Amino acid sequence: MNLDTAPTPALVLELDKLRANCARMLELTARRGCRLRPHMKTLKSIEAARLAIDPSHGGIAVSTLNEAEYFARAGISDIQLAVCLPPARLPWAAELSRRAPGLSLFIDDPEVAAAVADFAARHDADLRVWIEIDSGERRTGLLPDDPALLDTAAILARAPGVRLEGVATHGGHSYNVPAGQIAEVAEAERLAVAAAAGRLRQAGFEVPGVSAGSSPTAAHGRSAEGLTEIRAGVYMAGDLFQAGVGVLDRDEIAVWVLATVISHSRARGQLVVDAGGLALSKDRSTAVLPGLDAGYGEARALDGAALGLIVDEVYQEHGEIHGCPPGMLERLPVGSRLRILPNHACMTAAMYDHYLVVDAAGEVVDRWGRTNGWSPLAEVREGAAA
Amino acid sequence: MNLDTAPTPALVLELDKLRANCARMLELTARRGCRLRPHMKTLKSIEAARLAIDPSHGGIAVSTLNEAEYFARAGISDIQLAVCLPPARLPWAAELSRRAPGLSLFIDDPEVAAAVADFAARHDADLRVWIEIDSGERRTGLLPDDPALLDTAAILARAPGVRLEGVATHGGHSYNVPAGQIAEVAEAERLAVAAAAGRLRQAGFEVPGVSAGSSPTAAHGRSAEGLTEIRAGVYMAGDLFQAGVGVLDRDEIAVWVLATVISHSRARGQLVVDAGGLALSKDRSTAVLPGLDAGYGEARALDGAALGLIVDEVYQEHGEIHGCPPGMLERLPVGSRLRILPNHACMTAAMYDHYLVVDAAGEVVDRWGRTNGWSPLAEVREGAAA
Repeated sequence: MNLDTAPTPALVLELDKLRANCARMLELTARRGCRLRPHMKTLKSIEAARLAIDPSHGGIAVSTLNEAEYFARAGISDIQLAVCLPPARLPWAAELSRRAPGLSLFIDDPEVAAAVADFAARHDADLRVWIEIDSGERRTGLLPDDPALLDTAAILARAPGVRLEGVATHGGHSYNVPAGQIAEVAEAERLAVAAAAGRLRQAGFEVPGVSAGSSPTAAHGRSAEGLTEIRAGVYMAGDLFQAGVGVLDRDEIAVWVLATVISHSRARGQLVVDAGGLALSKDRSTAVLPGLDAGYGEARALDGAALGLIVDEVYQEHGEIHGCPPGMLERLPVGSRLRILPNHACMTAAMYDHYLVVDAAGEVVDRWGRTNGWSPLAEVREGAAA
Repeated sequence: MNLDTAPTPALVLELDKLRANCARMLELTARRGCRLRPHMKTLKSIEAARLAIDPSHGGIAVSTLNEAEYFARAGISDIQLAVCLPPARLPWAAELSRRAPGLSLFIDDPEVAAAVADFAARHDADLRVWIEIDSGERRTGLLPDDPALLDTAAILARAPGVRLEGVATHGGHSYNVPAGQIAEVAEAERLAVAAAAGRLRQAGFEVPGVSAGSSPTAAHGRSAEGLTEIRAGVYMAGDLFQAGVGVLDRDEIAVWVLATVISHSRARGQLVVDAGGLALSKDRSTAVLPGLDAGYGEARALDGAALGLIVDEVYQEHGEIHGCPPGMLERLPVGSRLRILPNHACMTAAMYDHYLVVDAAGEVVDRWGRTNGWSPLAEVREGAAA
């Protein structure tokens, strides 16, 4: 199979660019004297994890128990589930932690801490827990000065079978500021989680880990003082939003959608491709970047040459490219193949169950699976067999 | 398994509501003297297709070859692939048509017609083709008065192994007008495709089928004169957009996301659920409906009671509900379960590989698989086994 014949839409991963993006982030965090915990929520692939993992750290982050199970079955032990877990999911987490003893969970609530302590005691489980800190995103996490921080730590510290791993935060508000202000968000992220760690230590708690990060703050941050690890994920794939905020260049984006032209309108200067809202996602994150709004993705020639085209409108299975200049429809007859650079790789990649892995010459050299959804893996296999 | 213990986020399908939505559309099209071809691109489930199929017609529509293969393997023969197909995909289509002899394709271009004719001749294939007509959406299709219409029909009509099924259109611009104007779009949709059929018949072509539809135009249309079938799909599931344009009531929405509260902020009156941009999709289609913007979905109590809450913001795995009134956080502690009505069921359902099918009492009575993505099914199974 090659990119000229593969069924479309398909998800393509350029191996050389992925390797380079992984290496660059490892250098960048090492230069800051910090270890990297790659977040696998974007690529959800064990082959990608092997390229991204920091040999001096060994761990990864994930966003669902489905991902945790997938990576645990692939032999990774230090898996940080970086989304608060409701107590009803503790039995699944405990089961996974027997396979991956380094599995750790986020919580941000003393009541959930009590449920974790109770569960560990009743089931003789070993559970590792990070207290999530809100460093300004206002999504989840306790503020560093919240009285509940000490209460939560106290509940965890005295619970048999529970280990307090430390404090963790995600400066996700780095996505809402101009690129020039991301370094300030990175500083706020670092200071907030370091303050929480300091407060806990002062109160007598052991705080082995201090974890922070997002791709923008990892790329723009200036100091890692007080952190034990930096967490980032989408940098591996890259996308138009990350390029727009200076995490990488557009030419370094490693993951894109292979699409085929399925219809022409000469009267309207319009192309339609077979990559619509499902194939690209409806993410419009570049809309907030001045001068860089790429619609639902930037359409390029299959070899990567820029064409000055974006996907202006999507329907479930149709993507419309408006405003084609004279000659473009003749250059791209029905059946032509394009690459569509995604706005947000995490959302786009989630629509596919595998990557067509290509080398620098554009030859398909491998096919990597990825995990998706929220079900235990046994149920996923059962469904596909049905 | 029941809705109190199922892992979340999960996709729930209420069987009684699905049955009622299917029956209502069948009655509505029958009253208009027309047969119904249910479009399975929303639910992508054979069990749902069996409830939706019009016994007087027998056929369905689909939007991808993956869906066509799924339904062909389940024994359905009359499958209309209602998205223009690039010539490179003809071998897969021809293979499927041996299993489902009623498989038919959309084309809107004389050059593609020539490629279809050439393929059928060289491979001794039987291919059924609809010429797609643009009835005002300006996406794909030929205008009824386009000279290419007769050229395309001529190429198909003289090609051995090719059968011209007729003309087909989708009045998708019904999604862009106020509910009160949808009947006019339905009329324009009908008149355009009927005009194309008339023009072809006048030129001596046989036009057995005249196919038109969308859920809004099917619901609001007044006449089916000149049509042989009405096509619609999302009405089966329903969603907030369809409710907003009068296709059904919010209480008739049959498909929704089961979510769990994972974090609270009392200071901000904010709940966070484990259904984010992946679980709900980033579709914002209700944003254009005056007074009915539901953010990324309407959050209700698990029993369906309205709470006056919407999901205001989403991240990959987090959904934020802002502006909770006094008492709401106490009513919905961490671990509480909610149902989230989707903006756009086609986009939301595509994130899941199965439905939890519930009866009127909310008991899980079945689990239905669904197909997703664009790969041949053999590759999907291979991936899940890896």
